[in-house]
Amino acid sequence: MTRIAIPEDSPFGLANLPYGVFSTPGTAPRVGVRVADSVVDLAAGLGDDVFAAPSLNPFMAQGHARWVEVRERVLDLVSEDVPDDAVHPLDAVTLHMPFEVADYVDFYASEHHASNLGRLFRPDSEPLMPNWKHLPVGYHGRAGTVVPSGTDIVRPSGQRKGESAPTFGESRRLDIEAEVGFVVGTGSALGEPVSADDFDERVFGVVLVNDWSARDIQAWEYVPLGPFLGKSFATSVSHWVVPLLALEAARVATPPQDPEPLPYLREKNPWGLDLDLAVSWNGQVVSRPPYREMYWSPAQMLAHMTVNGASSRTGDLFASGTVSGPAKDQRGAFIELTWGGKEPVTVNGGPRTFLEDGDEVSITATAPGPSGTRIGFGDVTGRILPAR
Amino acid sequence: MTRIAIPEDSPFGLANLPYGVFSTPGTAPRVGVRVADSVVDLAAGLGDDVFAAPSLNPFMAQGHARWVEVRERVLDLVSEDVPDDAVHPLDAVTLHMPFEVADYVDFYASEHHASNLGRLFRPDSEPLMPNWKHLPVGYHGRAGTVVPSGTDIVRPSGQRKGESAPTFGESRRLDIEAEVGFVVGTGSALGEPVSADDFDERVFGVVLVNDWSARDIQAWEYVPLGPFLGKSFATSVSHWVVPLLALEAARVATPPQDPEPLPYLREKNPWGLDLDLAVSWNGQVVSRPPYREMYWSPAQMLAHMTVNGASSRTGDLFASGTVSGPAKDQRGAFIELTWGGKEPVTVNGGPRTFLEDGDEVSITATAPGPSGTRIGFGDVTGRILPAR
Repeated sequence: MTRIAIPEDSPFGLANLPYGVFSTPGTAPRVGVRVADSVVDLAAGLGDDVFAAPSLNPFMAQGHARWVEVRERVLDLVSEDVPDDAVHPLDAVTLHMPFEVADYVDFYASEHHASNLGRLFRPDSEPLMPNWKHLPVGYHGRAGTVVPSGTDIVRPSGQRKGESAPTFGESRRLDIEAEVGFVVGTGSALGEPVSADDFDERVFGVVLVNDWSARDIQAWEYVPLGPFLGKSFATSVSHWVVPLLALEAARVATPPQDPEPLPYLREKNPWGLDLDLAVSWNGQVVSRPPYREMYWSPAQMLAHMTVNGASSRTGDLFASGTVSGPAKDQRGAFIELTWGGKEPVTVNGGPRTFLEDGDEVSITATAPGPSGTRIGFGDVTGRILPAR
Repeated sequence: MTRIAIPEDSPFGLANLPYGVFSTPGTAPRVGVRVADSVVDLAAGLGDDVFAAPSLNPFMAQGHARWVEVRERVLDLVSEDVPDDAVHPLDAVTLHMPFEVADYVDFYASEHHASNLGRLFRPDSEPLMPNWKHLPVGYHGRAGTVVPSGTDIVRPSGQRKGESAPTFGESRRLDIEAEVGFVVGTGSALGEPVSADDFDERVFGVVLVNDWSARDIQAWEYVPLGPFLGKSFATSVSHWVVPLLALEAARVATPPQDPEPLPYLREKNPWGLDLDLAVSWNGQVVSRPPYREMYWSPAQMLAHMTVNGASSRTGDLFASGTVSGPAKDQRGAFIELTWGGKEPVTVNGGPRTFLEDGDEVSITATAPGPSGTRIGFGDVTGRILPAR
């Protein structure tokens, strides 16, 4: 039996208990919970085969009451001695994609980001479109190219605007978008909108997302049907899904919404989240985007996404869009941080604008936990490989 | 033993042999082939468990050589007496969604449709965007709301543009889009673009698609990230997947492409398709869209969709976008056919613009088969239910 050592200031202490999927040389991919620097095998620890699956989907599909019950059982398990075969050191396991993505939707919920992008992509128009403060603007992304943290990102090639005709070649304006993603645990039927107040009944947990973006490909292709190849080559997510149940102390009101949203977008209880993100570029923190500044809450996103009767499924991932705050060093995309490449930032002593081959970007976050503790998110990290 | 009677002019004769998924009171959903007005149970007929699955995905994933081999075996099977337990009358079976949709992409490949929509949505600009003749414009749709023919469509509600602020309510401009969809059989890895010349190695077959569209919701939401709730409430597909192997005689060149596309979009062998679509509104044919007029071929769509290194998966569905020809009665969407509702068409004696509750729309198609025969597609049909 093993007693897991949990340092008092660990962001992965008993108030967090995020879920992921891991394997070892001796065990096939299965569900585990991170506790400090250990991974607890839930199939072995709780003796329940739903956790022997290679994704969280079967467990998530069991619904909110089960999530509460299992969280209590896990807390009991890891507070006492744990059977040796159920505990692995974090550095001895391989981490995998934690869930199977059903549909992937990306929103655009930061007023600062949307305003900055509007100024950069459409310098001659109002930065915010007339619809922006009335609905959380979003679009569908490519579910099949959502990859776990640590997956290398091959620089994409594609069409870029040219003088008289487009040119083909590798993206020269490869960028990140630091986002927060929400994982649907229990779906909803076709024709049945989900109320914003049912958000926590439906949504299992939260991941960090890097929505890699090729700005030159995007700028040429995106009118009138939206981003496509400029985004679809890869979207990275963190290995650990932090349960919504761990984020009670992080809940805050969204910034004031004016005009008042239509009734289906009003929430009785606020689902703004006080997460502090940090973006590291080759090991140096270049930005600290504050999630609490996001205009639209994830509960509003879910209500909007289903108000037309669209069904949702276990494993649906919807992300916030780039998290940017009002200050320059709070911007969650390099196109904003360097103002379209015109105002380089200094990284490890040199001036930098967009991503170069070999660059590594890592996004981390923490949130308030109970009694002054901090809840940690797993990082979402990726390195750029040269175009093929 | 049963000899299946095949009328000489049947569009579901031995040159077609489309695949679907059916059940009977005695058999769980499984793969069948349509022959005239019969369905042949392939698990029973060929004794192969890959066809006992409730979707075509496991069979499609086996790859092109297997598709050729099975097509020959099915032809042998149904040309002779078939065991009684492997044959069901079409009207005695329930048809299901034929494949599990991985990602769903919708293109915009008809020059006539894109020009018409440009004039209607952006009357003050050039109808075609500068990128349109350089790349097949497309976007991701919602895979989870792709439904089989026969599924009722609940009228969606959502935000519509108002005088000073948007209003919420049911869509008043509910429309269809008559499209042709292509089903990926074998996927491709992340970072590895698919050549246009590998189209028939990768794509298993063809379905008809009705991409239901709420034009009022779409018009308000779609700038700058593209269509979202105006489309995501439902997309219907036909029950039968016509194998690409059945469409050799239907292959034609696309219309001349000027300017010449970039090298990755050039195809050695043409993959335009000479399909004749017909759109019925409450039983009356109102439009006959000609697929051969489509500017971009499906091989070009697949090459474009993966040129940035995006992977593809078994079950990916990509659709052509609305099929519209140059003539008014060849337009595949009612917004075009009625010019934004300003020029009603006569349906069963009355003037009609957009869809009313209780309306039924059915899209059918045929293509040239060998020796002067015609290949039929299953219809894609849906009826509008009132908003909830």
